[in-house]
Amino acid sequence: MTAEIRPVDHVIAAARAFLGERISTNAAVRDQHARGEDTTTPVQPDAVVFVESTEEVSQLLALCHRHGVPVTPFGAGTSLEGHVTPIRAGISLDLSRMTAILDVSQDDMDCLIEPGVTRHQLNDHLRDQGLFFPVDPGSHCTIGGMVATRASGTNAVRYGTIRENVMGLEVVMADGRVINTGSRTRKAANGYDLTRLIIGSEGTLGVVTKIRLRLHGIPEATSAAVVQFPDMRGCVESVIAVMQLGVPVARIELLDEVQIAACIAYSKLENLEVLPTLFLEFHGTEAGVREQAESVQAITTDMGGLGFAWAADQETRNKLWTARHNAYWAAIASQPNSRGVTTDVCVPISRLADALLGAREDILVSGLSCPLVGHVGDGNFHTVILVDQDDPAALDRAWALDRKIVARGLALGGTCSGEHGVGMGKAEFLEQEHGPEALAVMRSIKNTLDPKGILNPGKIFRN
Amino acid sequence: MTAEIRPVDHVIAAARAFLGERISTNAAVRDQHARGEDTTTPVQPDAVVFVESTEEVSQLLALCHRHGVPVTPFGAGTSLEGHVTPIRAGISLDLSRMTAILDVSQDDMDCLIEPGVTRHQLNDHLRDQGLFFPVDPGSHCTIGGMVATRASGTNAVRYGTIRENVMGLEVVMADGRVINTGSRTRKAANGYDLTRLIIGSEGTLGVVTKIRLRLHGIPEATSAAVVQFPDMRGCVESVIAVMQLGVPVARIELLDEVQIAACIAYSKLENLEVLPTLFLEFHGTEAGVREQAESVQAITTDMGGLGFAWAADQETRNKLWTARHNAYWAAIASQPNSRGVTTDVCVPISRLADALLGAREDILVSGLSCPLVGHVGDGNFHTVILVDQDDPAALDRAWALDRKIVARGLALGGTCSGEHGVGMGKAEFLEQEHGPEALAVMRSIKNTLDPKGILNPGKIFRN
Repeated sequence: MTAEIRPVDHVIAAARAFLGERISTNAAVRDQHARGEDTTTPVQPDAVVFVESTEEVSQLLALCHRHGVPVTPFGAGTSLEGHVTPIRAGISLDLSRMTAILDVSQDDMDCLIEPGVTRHQLNDHLRDQGLFFPVDPGSHCTIGGMVATRASGTNAVRYGTIRENVMGLEVVMADGRVINTGSRTRKAANGYDLTRLIIGSEGTLGVVTKIRLRLHGIPEATSAAVVQFPDMRGCVESVIAVMQLGVPVARIELLDEVQIAACIAYSKLENLEVLPTLFLEFHGTEAGVREQAESVQAITTDMGGLGFAWAADQETRNKLWTARHNAYWAAIASQPNSRGVTTDVCVPISRLADALLGAREDILVSGLSCPLVGHVGDGNFHTVILVDQDDPAALDRAWALDRKIVARGLALGGTCSGEHGVGMGKAEFLEQEHGPEALAVMRSIKNTLDPKGILNPGKIFRN
Repeated sequence: MTAEIRPVDHVIAAARAFLGERISTNAAVRDQHARGEDTTTPVQPDAVVFVESTEEVSQLLALCHRHGVPVTPFGAGTSLEGHVTPIRAGISLDLSRMTAILDVSQDDMDCLIEPGVTRHQLNDHLRDQGLFFPVDPGSHCTIGGMVATRASGTNAVRYGTIRENVMGLEVVMADGRVINTGSRTRKAANGYDLTRLIIGSEGTLGVVTKIRLRLHGIPEATSAAVVQFPDMRGCVESVIAVMQLGVPVARIELLDEVQIAACIAYSKLENLEVLPTLFLEFHGTEAGVREQAESVQAITTDMGGLGFAWAADQETRNKLWTARHNAYWAAIASQPNSRGVTTDVCVPISRLADALLGAREDILVSGLSCPLVGHVGDGNFHTVILVDQDDPAALDRAWALDRKIVARGLALGGTCSGEHGVGMGKAEFLEQEHGPEALAVMRSIKNTLDPKGILNPGKIFRN
């Protein structure tokens, strides 16, 4: 009697022929690919593959398709919703070594990159050319991961999300076929929008291997400011007023007093009080920036804002925005031995006060520690529900609070996810949000493009 | 022996039960629905249905699905690419009576409308509320038609196309199921982007019955200007420079001397010379508008522009933009008994001079009369190839010229359609533009969502 050879063993053996040392079954490597930064239960893949070209991705997917082996794409592993957890084991497809910046056009303000490029790497590369890529999630994620999850960040209020900043993609489909989507033009009415279909599909329809991004000119002038408020309501109402007045702010970020306390400790923001706070940034011409800032200053003063602290020099601005980008880590560090369950509710701007102040009530009732921070110009905010890693009951309480905050967001006409994606964490809300008919249409597209269900199973759709 | 009853007769009989007089087999009505404003061969549908509700669309599609009867959606009939030509007869589904504006939110700057609403109707409705809807194709089209064809217009350079201004849709699928897509939030990472999949699908995947649009605040200040140039190159190079400098112009439209001659005659623009011309508009604060205009004036002067004629008062501006929106009709009127074959090439901005001046060479060689006009800030321009309606040979020559101009656009990294859609007219170019693999993915989605192929057959895909 011989031991049964599993389908994945065929894939591993065949892939070794063209990947050599770049396919690993080492336990430590598999462990590093067992989940992201979320609280899902870790699952080790059978093997981790470090691909370096489209051709390799194509060969690997053709193999997995033939043998019915699951493939879970992996970038920087910063997902907060279980996207990279290979819940049915199989292959973890690590794209983090595909970091080539293949082309930058100053004239057309676009570039072609591989998916493992991070936004930091890209912006370092672009700086000398007077260009920048605006989409900036807090984490050191890959741009491939951002495409997969339809990510955004602090600048989205002015420059849009990744959805508005991708012009086209190269995608390897489930069976290994390679397609090109989109166009290098600013607009096109040339058939189905496969680019937008792939963006936000979380690795369930295909694997992105090249990305053409729209870039922006570094603004002539930039200034930033911080305003603190005696209470949350004035803080939130200021945001709503700024947006309704149409001031084209580049960033308008809210941190509640729990979050700001964590940031003061983590990022040494000595000048700030433990009060609800707005971080602001303005982009434009010298005159335009001044005009915007004056409008916002007038509004926040009117709403009870305590002064308007300028951060005109680049060093002060960098410190401010680094602190904002590290808010998640500041939150995690504020409580020993913790991980975070993160909500990502986004609502129409008119409902922001209800959603946000309601979430604060829910948090208070729960008794959990839970900093709140938000891309409030877009109506989007996060609560980072802190749980002791070693206390399963705490995790259950955190999920109960998460459900309550999301349910309130949906009831206010919002979405369960503004920017983190669905993954496993938000899949339970999709039917309520879209209705069973729309979800069935999504499933039928999934089944058509990935008939064997090998691509990132268990994500977006609950099984 | 009894006469055979055709499937469409079953549909007509059953539909009469719930539509009464609103299903018509009258020859004149069928003739009005036999094609749009294009040069396709007219085909009469078997019946025209004037629907008034989602429920009626759903019932009708369920019937047509059951009997395998083709359905061609019809709005205002302004398509230039054969979208509304019912090439396999069946039902012409006229949505032009669904004109309700169901909801306008000033706080969230959005609205919910039915698909038969035109942009004029919507903007008339919004004006008192300080809001406007920016997407403005030249024609009196319906917004449903704009969604179907991924339309844009003169303001897209600043405000984006319909793709960026639709938040969500209600769609009746081929079998009559009704789905809701999208979200009222400014961003969402909540599953597949069905909204963007439907936008630009030209009635081949479903019929749009409600549209939630993003609106914009009427700018504090608006000014417009006209600049003429001694030659085309200076005119085009000015546009490229303005865009590469990142001046946020609201409109930048080019008309060549053939088009401007037609417009002078049609719209009585007595003050203009027969020279290559730019029409410009600036939106912003008083100071911002002044700043933008000064930047553009400096550029155009540098490129040989002959002065900079202001149109600050609203009456002069209206005359200017009405003339621009009537450019197509001015072109048609410039040659007796003519119809137009229209190209809609869009290229990356750095290739605009090559594409546009190359097209002018092609026109010269062809000997055909052909005004050229363009949304040049987006790299998009139209040539309206004028043909005598009664001369089939002229139509063949026009199509030969069209193919040449499109082929040049594709070779320059462009698209066959910037905003008019594929329809029948541009379907032959899709395989070259996207490659066979991507086109096969589009077809597989079509076959999944419309397995009997009843929805607008023969459009986008060649049969």
